[in-house]
Amino acid sequence: MKEEVYYGRGMKRVKEKYPDLYEGINKLNEAIYTGKKLDYKTQKLVAIGIVASKCDESATKKQMSSGMAELGITEDEIVDVLRVVLLTAGMPAFNKGMRILEEITAI
Amino acid sequence: MKEEVYYGRGMKRVKEKYPDLYEGINKLNEAIYTGKKLDYKTQKLVAIGIVASKCDESATKKQMSSGMAELGITEDEIVDVLRVVLLTAGMPAFNKGMRILEEITAI
Amino acid sequence: MKEEVYYGRGMKRVKEKYPDLYEGINKLNEAIYTGKKLDYKTQKLVAIGIVASKCDESATKKQMSSGMAELGITEDEIVDVLRVVLLTAGMPAFNKGMRILEEITAI
Amino acid sequence: MKEEVYYGRGMKRVKEKYPDLYEGINKLNEAIYTGKKLDYKTQKLVAIGIVASKCDESATKKQMSSGMAELGITEDEIVDVLRVVLLTAGMPAFNKGMRILEEITAI
Amino acid sequence: MKEEVYYGRGMKRVKEKYPDLYEGINKLNEAIYTGKKLDYKTQKLVAIGIVASKCDESATKKQMSSGMAELGITEDEIVDVLRVVLLTAGMPAFNKGMRILEEITAI
Amino acid sequence: MKEEVYYGRGMKRVKEKYPDLYEGINKLNEAIYTGKKLDYKTQKLVAIGIVASKCDESATKKQMSSGMAELGITEDEIVDVLRVVLLTAGMPAFNKGMRILEEITAI
Repeated sequence: MKEEVYYGRGMKRVKEKYPDLYEGINKLNEAIYTGKKLDYKTQKLVAIGIVASKCDESATKKQMSSGMAELGITEDEIVDVLRVVLLTAGMPAFNKGMRILEEITAI
Repeated sequence: MKEEVYYGRGMKRVKEKYPDLYEGINKLNEAIYTGKKLDYKTQKLVAIGIVASKCDESATKKQMSSGMAELGITEDEIVDVLRVVLLTAGMPAFNKGMRILEEITAI
Repeated sequence: MKEEVYYGRGMKRVKEKYPDLYEGINKLNEAIYTGKKLDYKTQKLVAIGIVASKCDESATKKQMSSGMAELGITEDEIVDVLRVVLLTAGMPAFNKGMRILEEITAI
Repeated sequence: MKEEVYYGRGMKRVKEKYPDLYEGINKLNEAIYTGKKLDYKTQKLVAIGIVASKCDESATKKQMSSGMAELGITEDEIVDVLRVVLLTAGMPAFNKGMRILEEITAI
Repeated sequence: MKEEVYYGRGMKRVKEKYPDLYEGINKLNEAIYTGKKLDYKTQKLVAIGIVASKCDESATKKQMSSGMAELGITEDEIVDVLRVVLLTAGMPAFNKGMRILEEITAI
Repeated sequence: MKEEVYYGRGMKRVKEKYPDLYEGINKLNEAIYTGKKLDYKTQKLVAIGIVASKCDESATKKQMSSGMAELGITEDEIVDVLRVVLLTAGMPAFNKGMRILEEITAI
């Protein structure tokens, strides 16, 4: 995944102050998206599903936003991910995901 | 999702003793997989990612098994989902997912 | 559960844009609160306990508010739920629940 | 809650080897079930809902078993708790709860 | 742990309105930090790791702040805890922890 | 962390079939335990606390076992970690941790 897509604000600090750790995260990141069968978009949809199922608001927002901006994931596709979130993680996670999606697409 | 795919052992009891609840779950289930953009296989991959990220052993086993048996999801594709699990949920969830996958494919 | 009680902001969008999914959620919802032994208030107390134990701030606020406004659940009763949250989910979940309750009842 | 109800196997060791900690847990336990508005059975139903929503198999089994044996909670009442678990935590947690309930009541 | 360190805003209310519960929490708290082998600072580092791995923002902030202010825990030491969080709970938890640490140390 | 300490059974398969991913995990692992202030034992105690707070049985067993076998962590020190687990994650997580510790030390 590209740095801007996955990395949050905190990563800038890691890069500057803890270059070894930053390097390790980068190596892992590369390996995660190298030599694989699924395309990047499908993996991103999985990532959106996972963070949304955890009710992690900021991570969900970041994943949705970058998925839409950089991979052309549509609102309907994210709703289809949230359908699975509803079934596997319940209404509160689904509700939160829908609200975040609404905020992102309202902009 | 087909009944056999998603429903666990406990659902037989729900069907017999709590038909209203069973009906409600079915209706939801239909709605979740109706009129949508993503194909069923992609949604299944999302479901595998979510349950694996929760370290839910029996649900992970069930989702992986049914995904491979009924939708032709391959071992490599599940590993690609587990790569995302590693990044978003850490090593213990990844390890558990790899071990379950190993047990399933060893049969 | 009544629509206003359980459904969050995101549900309006679901109703308009994804009527099938909305219908499925409604059917499930009905089944969950039909033909049962426990009264609605007890189920609501269980719901408050579950979302508070997950440290889900917005869901906890919504469940507490609607439980107090529509079912006459008292502050002391919610504290009794939070006692169980303390024992089963620890201090951070309990602390967060107490703070949310304080904010709601301060209004 | 009575010692046999809430405490698991590990607590015997705590009692023998870490009496201070054991005492602290007891004091907390007393406070949690003293001077409150909700009856013990309702709090137990909340506890069952919380541990079931976390997919914690052994804790769910223990809570359900002791609730049925000591407080006369019925199978139908536990199903009503699991309905709330379904709505707030999803199908995997509901499925697991139903399976555990089936195992307990099959004995 | 000292009251100011561990207890959040909600605890003042508990103290005033539910003295029995407050007393029980205090007794537990004492037992947790009495007659033990690990020093207080190490236990605090464990606590920071646990709440950060749960993505609990307010608890993480509180634990980090009090650990730095009262026990002299340094920024580098918290980063070392977050390294473990990264490995055991994934990037979103690590990212959130780094961002919170940045906010605290920016003041 | 040494390979035997942290890596579970599933990792052998990763090494053979997905060498790129294996390499990435190794690089991250190195970075996590390089150039840091906290000693390895303290980080291990944090790891035990995190997996125990998630009620992840197999990961908790693995972390405790390797910590005792390779780093000389004592039973009492693990109990001190579990005290923090009790406070931050509740009785079910504490109970499970105590039972696992009992099983390990009974051997």
